[in-house]
Amino acid sequence: MRAGLMGFGKAGKAVASVLMQHPDFSLKWVLRRSEVLEHRHVGEFLGIATEDEAFIRSVGHVDIETFLDEHPVDCIIDFSPAESIHMYGAAAAKRGITIISAISHYGDAEKELLHTLAKDTVVFWSPNITLGVNYLMFAGKFLKKIAPWADIQLVEEHFKTKQGISGTAIKIAESLDLESTEINSVRAGGIVGKHELIFGFPYQTVRLVHESISREAFGNGVIFAAQNLTGMGPGLYNFEDILLPYFTPNPN
Amino acid sequence: MRAGLMGFGKAGKAVASVLMQHPDFSLKWVLRRSEVLEHRHVGEFLGIATEDEAFIRSVGHVDIETFLDEHPVDCIIDFSPAESIHMYGAAAAKRGITIISAISHYGDAEKELLHTLAKDTVVFWSPNITLGVNYLMFAGKFLKKIAPWADIQLVEEHFKTKQGISGTAIKIAESLDLESTEINSVRAGGIVGKHELIFGFPYQTVRLVHESISREAFGNGVIFAAQNLTGMGPGLYNFEDILLPYFTPNPN
Amino acid sequence: MRAGLMGFGKAGKAVASVLMQHPDFSLKWVLRRSEVLEHRHVGEFLGIATEDEAFIRSVGHVDIETFLDEHPVDCIIDFSPAESIHMYGAAAAKRGITIISAISHYGDAEKELLHTLAKDTVVFWSPNITLGVNYLMFAGKFLKKIAPWADIQLVEEHFKTKQGISGTAIKIAESLDLESTEINSVRAGGIVGKHELIFGFPYQTVRLVHESISREAFGNGVIFAAQNLTGMGPGLYNFEDILLPYFTPNPN
Amino acid sequence: MRAGLMGFGKAGKAVASVLMQHPDFSLKWVLRRSEVLEHRHVGEFLGIATEDEAFIRSVGHVDIETFLDEHPVDCIIDFSPAESIHMYGAAAAKRGITIISAISHYGDAEKELLHTLAKDTVVFWSPNITLGVNYLMFAGKFLKKIAPWADIQLVEEHFKTKQGISGTAIKIAESLDLESTEINSVRAGGIVGKHELIFGFPYQTVRLVHESISREAFGNGVIFAAQNLTGMGPGLYNFEDILLPYFTPNPN
Repeated sequence: MRAGLMGFGKAGKAVASVLMQHPDFSLKWVLRRSEVLEHRHVGEFLGIATEDEAFIRSVGHVDIETFLDEHPVDCIIDFSPAESIHMYGAAAAKRGITIISAISHYGDAEKELLHTLAKDTVVFWSPNITLGVNYLMFAGKFLKKIAPWADIQLVEEHFKTKQGISGTAIKIAESLDLESTEINSVRAGGIVGKHELIFGFPYQTVRLVHESISREAFGNGVIFAAQNLTGMGPGLYNFEDILLPYFTPNPN
Repeated sequence: MRAGLMGFGKAGKAVASVLMQHPDFSLKWVLRRSEVLEHRHVGEFLGIATEDEAFIRSVGHVDIETFLDEHPVDCIIDFSPAESIHMYGAAAAKRGITIISAISHYGDAEKELLHTLAKDTVVFWSPNITLGVNYLMFAGKFLKKIAPWADIQLVEEHFKTKQGISGTAIKIAESLDLESTEINSVRAGGIVGKHELIFGFPYQTVRLVHESISREAFGNGVIFAAQNLTGMGPGLYNFEDILLPYFTPNPN
Repeated sequence: MRAGLMGFGKAGKAVASVLMQHPDFSLKWVLRRSEVLEHRHVGEFLGIATEDEAFIRSVGHVDIETFLDEHPVDCIIDFSPAESIHMYGAAAAKRGITIISAISHYGDAEKELLHTLAKDTVVFWSPNITLGVNYLMFAGKFLKKIAPWADIQLVEEHFKTKQGISGTAIKIAESLDLESTEINSVRAGGIVGKHELIFGFPYQTVRLVHESISREAFGNGVIFAAQNLTGMGPGLYNFEDILLPYFTPNPN
Repeated sequence: MRAGLMGFGKAGKAVASVLMQHPDFSLKWVLRRSEVLEHRHVGEFLGIATEDEAFIRSVGHVDIETFLDEHPVDCIIDFSPAESIHMYGAAAAKRGITIISAISHYGDAEKELLHTLAKDTVVFWSPNITLGVNYLMFAGKFLKKIAPWADIQLVEEHFKTKQGISGTAIKIAESLDLESTEINSVRAGGIVGKHELIFGFPYQTVRLVHESISREAFGNGVIFAAQNLTGMGPGLYNFEDILLPYFTPNPN
């Protein structure tokens, strides 16, 4: 699968690194706003041996229609600022390119655009594209359905300087109807990211725990999404849509 | 729901205690092999205020057919030795009484009998009747299906004197095709019981953890089973059968 | 060692149970305010086989001076209301009886009395008499001394109905100069009690975790205190005083 | 403090990165066996802004006596192969340069040399130079001394491909006299490194847990060692020697 990447910040670099090392994926190019690193090779920059084209180009120096024709891809992975969907969305949809977006927050205009694009191509949007976190939410919702009387509490741990409740924790809390008093935020040292859902029963406790080791986890989520979107028709999908088929009777 | 209890060991006592305190259940009687405590009242013995009949009778002193006619129940909960199903099974099935068995190991003769009884009544058998442990197995199997490449390891912790790998750990390992080298048994002090399933991904970790606080957890599992078997037709069911309906699309 | 016990609430019962089963201790009597259970035998009431005298008497029915002469003990263990120290303190100190108090909160009058009594006998006071919790505070203080730059956070977990921050968490926080925003309180189901001290470093994390399994842990703390106070001269001691001698060079 | 670094493998790079960013340390040079990267600048290579000299030189191209005279340092930090102590040891000791070695295994000849060098300068050797792991061993030994009756179990977790029991786990086990059956090794995904010491009591559990986030933890250990060795006279020291002074009475 030929992939193009929008954005080359910390998360973007980690995703590029995973894509280049995966046998089923080929990173064709990276488009970014900054002109730094333009014309460098992602593999050479990150110190990763790869046969992927993987060149870096600045958005300001390309015409997106021409660019997509000259450097065709099967999917565009978006870790760039929210507004860049306006730049490439229509051009991608017109060509039937799958859009996989990991943007945390979209405004109303962007959300509306996603719906429009989804009429022509596969559009996937997940504010947290980590497989484990999405599994956690999914499995947690089922446990709540099974045992609505259980007390649910969320503990999230991150590095000292992280401000506010983590976006992932807010998303987990929303999916389980937790109140903000039921979220506990621990801030200490260099903890990468840990989310622990505690289900309290009178005589037992169930804990669902997700720990991030590094940002490359986003890359694996992207690959999981891309592979599970294969063969789907145009439409707007989220992570729950691609997990649901696994939750069918007779998991054996 | 009127319940009769077979067996009054440590687990049986804990289950009786939970049943007597649940508004939807009424403990009619306990049948046990020993003659100790015969004609005592379960509530009085355990120091629990209840209006349930809850008398204790020795198996050797009753004729089971007459007994079930004189003291009718909707379900029989079995925490007694494996062979006692031969004593009460046919009489219960004939009267359409639901059988809920938490026996750890049945021989071939008993398993065959369960199948026969299941033609006439609802028969439920779960070697570990704790809700949390069964959820763990279920959620674990789905995660394995979603991510078959993940490394799975099991750590179980119990009190120092517990011999061998825990039966629950063996059952979890079987349901996930783990090898015995992938089970780690920690034995220390008075740990009641903890099972931790670790799913290792390259850049993240998911942990499913169950901790037992006390044996009363069996009681809650019995109640969950009894409530979820209501309305079902004759047949042999296990815990997965009653969890599956919750794992359907649109869990919202 | 002959012990008398003040108080027979939940904690008192658990402590009595541990004392009766310990080879080095003999429970002579329990004094309590209530007249319920008067003249019953603790072992018979709790269902524990013991040769200890272990009778129960109501405070209102005894003259403490006469009582202590007729039923002499080496130590009095106090799990009763705070004010009862006024009732037995002077009589105990006069006879050189060691006082081991686990009262959570003493008023100024009681604290002053403790200092007075400590001129004549060994007086030990620890609001939380669990060995593990006191070790946690102690080891935590040393880690803070070694690494004052580490971020410290406390997570405490208890059963759903527990109100406010746990007294133990407050004590741990005080001993480490934590602010209340650095304490996270999780309330869920029937969790007995867990305290987790998290030390965050830039590239590593150290966690000190204490989990209570049951109230009998108080009993073991009482035994540890009593054994480590043996041979000490009159004075007012706390748990740190009896842990310190273990923290000396060359622990091998 | 001016530091020279022997070795530039994964751990060496991480240590260099921490040293260059610490205000009290200045990385003068790196000596390594390989000729790759010779004459490159460590900061430029690792992408870290620094004013440190931090040049890289191949051992085969320098005369160590001349090199140390021309590029004087206060301490040499050794993350290179075990035998390199023969190359620089005498020259460093002669000049009173502190030697801080993190070599996992030294042979008898190297150990003997360390003792000889320690007559002239400060020699520090710690096979695991992480502050947290050393604290864990230290605090664990004290808890064992306080409660010799507690059951101790060790669980260590590392990435799937790690062979055998971790060296750190073996060292912890030795310091606590654990048998190999009391060490549980979990291997899953990309877990960086976790060591959990479990102390089981009848009614409570204490856990001491260390988690590594990244190799830079070695760097912080080096800095802690270097700072705590300041002012010490010639001699052979280990991590326990520099932790002990903190474990003195009145930790307040």
